[in-house]
Amino acid sequence: MKVIALEAHDVRFPTSAALDGSDAMNPDPDYSAAYVVLHTEAGDGHGFCFTIGRGNEVCVAAIRAYEPLVTGRDLDLDDLGGFAKGLLHDSQLRWLGPEKGAVHMAAAAIVNAAFDLAAKVAGKPLWRFLADLAPEQIVDLADWRYLTDALTPADAVGLLADARPGRAEREARLVERGYPAYTTTPGWLGYTDDKLARLAREAVAEGFTQIKLKVGADLDEDVRRMGLAREVVGPGIRIAVDANQRWDVGQAIEWMRALAPFDPYWIEEPTSPDDVLGHAAIRRAVAPVKVATGEHVANRVMFKQLLQAGAIDVLQLDACRVGVTENVAILLLAARFGVPVCPHAGGVGLCEVVQHLSMFDYVAVSGSTQDRVLEYVDHLHEHFTDPVRIVRGHYAAPAEPGMSAEMKPESLADHAYPGGSVWRDLP
Amino acid sequence: MKVIALEAHDVRFPTSAALDGSDAMNPDPDYSAAYVVLHTEAGDGHGFCFTIGRGNEVCVAAIRAYEPLVTGRDLDLDDLGGFAKGLLHDSQLRWLGPEKGAVHMAAAAIVNAAFDLAAKVAGKPLWRFLADLAPEQIVDLADWRYLTDALTPADAVGLLADARPGRAEREARLVERGYPAYTTTPGWLGYTDDKLARLAREAVAEGFTQIKLKVGADLDEDVRRMGLAREVVGPGIRIAVDANQRWDVGQAIEWMRALAPFDPYWIEEPTSPDDVLGHAAIRRAVAPVKVATGEHVANRVMFKQLLQAGAIDVLQLDACRVGVTENVAILLLAARFGVPVCPHAGGVGLCEVVQHLSMFDYVAVSGSTQDRVLEYVDHLHEHFTDPVRIVRGHYAAPAEPGMSAEMKPESLADHAYPGGSVWRDLP
Repeated sequence: MKVIALEAHDVRFPTSAALDGSDAMNPDPDYSAAYVVLHTEAGDGHGFCFTIGRGNEVCVAAIRAYEPLVTGRDLDLDDLGGFAKGLLHDSQLRWLGPEKGAVHMAAAAIVNAAFDLAAKVAGKPLWRFLADLAPEQIVDLADWRYLTDALTPADAVGLLADARPGRAEREARLVERGYPAYTTTPGWLGYTDDKLARLAREAVAEGFTQIKLKVGADLDEDVRRMGLAREVVGPGIRIAVDANQRWDVGQAIEWMRALAPFDPYWIEEPTSPDDVLGHAAIRRAVAPVKVATGEHVANRVMFKQLLQAGAIDVLQLDACRVGVTENVAILLLAARFGVPVCPHAGGVGLCEVVQHLSMFDYVAVSGSTQDRVLEYVDHLHEHFTDPVRIVRGHYAAPAEPGMSAEMKPESLADHAYPGGSVWRDLP
Repeated sequence: MKVIALEAHDVRFPTSAALDGSDAMNPDPDYSAAYVVLHTEAGDGHGFCFTIGRGNEVCVAAIRAYEPLVTGRDLDLDDLGGFAKGLLHDSQLRWLGPEKGAVHMAAAAIVNAAFDLAAKVAGKPLWRFLADLAPEQIVDLADWRYLTDALTPADAVGLLADARPGRAEREARLVERGYPAYTTTPGWLGYTDDKLARLAREAVAEGFTQIKLKVGADLDEDVRRMGLAREVVGPGIRIAVDANQRWDVGQAIEWMRALAPFDPYWIEEPTSPDDVLGHAAIRRAVAPVKVATGEHVANRVMFKQLLQAGAIDVLQLDACRVGVTENVAILLLAARFGVPVCPHAGGVGLCEVVQHLSMFDYVAVSGSTQDRVLEYVDHLHEHFTDPVRIVRGHYAAPAEPGMSAEMKPESLADHAYPGGSVWRDLP
């Protein structure tokens, strides 16, 4: 099956106008996608890099840099691990990472588009497409380079085989109840107290058992907002806090001591996502508050160390910063170390694509939803052909074939940057 | 002083034809530069990202993404730390890293161009421009975010103050003798045995006391080549080996056991540059062979951990993967932990720019050349207006103002990709 063309679109949403998505490090994001359409003889696959505005064109350039490796070549849907390695091991493009930054994100978008296509060809939503593979097939998707000191392919096969009993029951339960979610909608830093209180109250009424607040810009403000949120939701609802990498190690520890009276459930991104040892030090100091990170963790090697060092309680993979094949490796590592995966989502389209990974994890890898929640943000879902559905605080399991990554043609056209109507009409 | 324009050039050299630069991970590099010219009212500054071919255009796109933050703004040559932070803290562009990959390399190229200009305006080579700053001024260049658990700005000032005695003598010695170099010229993987033996013999005759061999593709071959090299140079010359990230942790340990009889001095890039804990495990296992890495280490946070974890004996910063301000922080961290810095060089222009950092380190930071050597590769120097000069195995201290980053206009024109004459005329 031949790849006919690789299209890349620069698509941006002017979200900074409403301070949706504002946090201590990212005051004015314009949620954006470097959007891929992989045209093949068997149909189209869709994927994207998620960015927050400026620089989206760099991801578009990076996607185009892979074109000579993709267009015109045979795509074997039974060897998507090999396809991904062909992109990720290209020595010249790898030099720009290695395995991080714009080229790694671009490769992930293309790999995800190939999985979207493969699931569509199989007539299954991606979560079921992955869960239906044999353990050996799942293990073959991953790139095991740099991982074998923590987990070997043979051990991973064993781990997946151990998870097979109960699969049918879990799948039925997932289809019936969905996958547990938490919501970040109330907690953006730019929101007023009234808006925070109203959205927090609504979240509880809608069935969510966890919300998340952005923190890290001003300690007194954070203490006040956290107190307000705790008062509104009561003691039975988990409140996670998220500093978006704002602090040094010592600062993180001090700040969390001040927030401790309000019983934060986890502190997310307390410091640089590169700082494995820093997260380990913070975790030791702020327990029983949990430490979470992952949305900016560059690759499986970094996650391996976060797990080896005992640096995190919660692993927050992102469905677009690395592709499906690498996320399969990350899910296997998390299972090996017994750390729950609570993925990052939000932005544009991240909820749509990442739900498939959590559901695959539940059915075929960890086999559990214990202490696992999937982030939900109520933004921009209307631009997708198969948007997420939240029912009583749970993600409903998608039934349509594919990875739910496809944007509506009119959304692509209107939000094309800089020529689309939305950008031309901005005041 | 206003920035008038930010130019970005895609410049490539067809080095893959001769297998110059071939190693176990990079079989066919075409050394390339995403080259920056910073035009200001006070003159021009030059800098570049180094890449190995495909993807150079992604760095060009990333440089252009910074244009709105640079062109038309005032550049205060007395606050280059602030200028660098203005680029590196841009939240939207930072999202593509953070602080890694194409955008981080692009910011580094622009920051380096600003330092090239500042040194030219001061009428000094960069090494002397930096060494003549007061300790507080040097410390103000660095971005201390994420570093304070290992080194505070106040401690860094103290460290620099402690290094002040003997400066004049060191500077005089440097100008007289130069800075010790080692050569990678003999060791590329694609070279024949005859070429390896001839170049190794020549290196010793020219006064080098250390050479480096690429390894990692085939163990039997490596044992044979290492034996040949040791036979040619004798026991008194250090032979470093470089695996260019080819191995997993266990593999690295086994491979180095097989090479141990030939007394390798250091093993460079045994595994992923992201694997701090992996390097620490390898170091424990292969001692007394030293462990070195750095050319692909993304930023100061990763170096901080390599030092905190006792993972490296030799720190190999690269002058282009991060900019001068970040390399100042890295030199300070290395001094704090007592680890010698032996920078990565080679490629195109890396020798020219990095020599300034080693010489600054010697005069003003570590104050020592003990166990410090600067990589030298005899490639492509003829394209620079102020090329490095090697005298009896030492880099001669540059005397011309600036960072030695400027390419000749005819080299830029001939190697412009894809339109330059060198590329048009390729068979």
